[in-house]
Amino acid sequence: MSYDKFEALKRRYLALRSVETVRVLRIQDEIVSEIRAFLKGEGFVEILAPIIGPVTDPGIRGAKQVSIDYYGARFKVMSSMILYKQMMIISLPKIFALSPNVRLEPLETVKTRRHLTEFRQIDLEVAYATYKDVMELGERMLCHVTTKIKRKCRRELKEQKRDLKVPRRPFKKYTYKEALEILENLGIHVKYGLEIPWGAEEALSKVHNEPFWVTDFPTTARCFYYMEHEDNSEILKDFDLIYPEGFGESISGGEREHRYAEVVERMRISGEDISEYGWYLDMLKAGVPPSAGFGIGVERLTRFICGLENIWDAVPFPKVAGVYSP
Amino acid sequence: MSYDKFEALKRRYLALRSVETVRVLRIQDEIVSEIRAFLKGEGFVEILAPIIGPVTDPGIRGAKQVSIDYYGARFKVMSSMILYKQMMIISLPKIFALSPNVRLEPLETVKTRRHLTEFRQIDLEVAYATYKDVMELGERMLCHVTTKIKRKCRRELKEQKRDLKVPRRPFKKYTYKEALEILENLGIHVKYGLEIPWGAEEALSKVHNEPFWVTDFPTTARCFYYMEHEDNSEILKDFDLIYPEGFGESISGGEREHRYAEVVERMRISGEDISEYGWYLDMLKAGVPPSAGFGIGVERLTRFICGLENIWDAVPFPKVAGVYSP
Repeated sequence: MSYDKFEALKRRYLALRSVETVRVLRIQDEIVSEIRAFLKGEGFVEILAPIIGPVTDPGIRGAKQVSIDYYGARFKVMSSMILYKQMMIISLPKIFALSPNVRLEPLETVKTRRHLTEFRQIDLEVAYATYKDVMELGERMLCHVTTKIKRKCRRELKEQKRDLKVPRRPFKKYTYKEALEILENLGIHVKYGLEIPWGAEEALSKVHNEPFWVTDFPTTARCFYYMEHEDNSEILKDFDLIYPEGFGESISGGEREHRYAEVVERMRISGEDISEYGWYLDMLKAGVPPSAGFGIGVERLTRFICGLENIWDAVPFPKVAGVYSP
Repeated sequence: MSYDKFEALKRRYLALRSVETVRVLRIQDEIVSEIRAFLKGEGFVEILAPIIGPVTDPGIRGAKQVSIDYYGARFKVMSSMILYKQMMIISLPKIFALSPNVRLEPLETVKTRRHLTEFRQIDLEVAYATYKDVMELGERMLCHVTTKIKRKCRRELKEQKRDLKVPRRPFKKYTYKEALEILENLGIHVKYGLEIPWGAEEALSKVHNEPFWVTDFPTTARCFYYMEHEDNSEILKDFDLIYPEGFGESISGGEREHRYAEVVERMRISGEDISEYGWYLDMLKAGVPPSAGFGIGVERLTRFICGLENIWDAVPFPKVAGVYSP
């Protein structure tokens, strides 16, 4: 693969002078402000997200975590703050953070136009909530932010030639199994039990003009921190929200498996090194409340709202796999 | 040194249940919200801060930067986003970010009660501003946030037994040289040309009951990115804001040296490896506007406002030098 088209990223200080970049960054500020306003209105407290730690989210679909030397111990840069969200709801029942995430994505992700190696999520968690509760919250959040941005950034969206629509609620919901059937009809075969690959997800996204949910992923496809259904341990109480028009994944989340013994068992089955999860397992042993939550990628939301072809136009300092940009 | 007293940090999920922790985190949310509201009112745009990059701030007073392997290249976790702020004002003249910072502080910093290895700053930069402009902004910002918190968190501050005062403007200003004279009178000798050590800074802070500025640090004490005075290249157009009552440093900032040749010369003198500053020097060669800005540590501001003995009580997931906490 040639990286020639990424030479511009290495000289980002030139692209930053463009009118479109300025416009997108102003819209992004409004997007983040409006999500904050919405969540504050829902009683959420914003907390400071962790940056590094002894352990981080392993459920990052083929990307590599970043290790650092922390006074002789191996720490990680956060790939997501999921484990810390479960800690935080001990203290505050509704929390969110603008969380920094680093994931060394495979080199081929530069072709997806929606993967960054450094990105931010609005990451939220609600104690004692079900996955259906936070899906409903996510729908209202997305409708709030699109409504507000349409109003506050009318001129900017026009200049972007972006005809942004406020989604209609409730959003369509497919189970993972139903999503695989739609894909099969599109001529794309995904083996039951695996993650939906990026290309298939994009194809699914392209045949929709409204955001939609995919729920109930198989236990084998996802991480130990999602709760299984009571009546079927092979599927999870989890979800992805997919943007329409080919923009792909928006939100990922679910209800949490918070029971010590069950988490250890799930880790064993998925082959996690249990000795690496020191504080997390100690915490579960001490007890945390059940909860549900999700993360929504800020750059992907910006890309969707602004109608951008490439994710790297949705962030001030873009980093994509294998490119040594600032 | 014994780390026994830091055992609690390793089991942070227990401390999070305390009423005081919940209270402090709620106040912290209000603090960050009020700073955001103030800066938005001043016309600032909030941007997404970088997390990693090929090069980061070297001016971190004896702390070590964190290196990572980024697709075969050596990248750093941001120690501060100063170099990126200079890039951003090409695009937007008034910007700020809640920026993540990691600095491996020397082990003895656990005694200062105000050093974390992972912290956040509200980091701002203003194109074409002087250092005096942003000092004035900093004073108004601190007065805004203390006024608002006194009003919105009256009950919480009372429970904290914190008698928070709104500072009187303008704040007292000492040059570095004057600060050294005050220290001399307190029986503390600091050699002219060096940074003011933490202990001396705390002593200076203890003999004040209002925040105060220290300006015009010697060029030898500070980093290449501060502008020298036109009439005296041995002192800088820079400043620290020091909290009263022993709380120590609040803000650090100044006017930027943005001229390519001058930056290269300063790097040579201070012994920086110029080859490591690829994109930054290329950017200066292409030209960036003059600017001034500062960073204010969110955890230190929280510690000051809440009147906390230890900085590690001012953050959800505290990390101090040498302690393997979550």
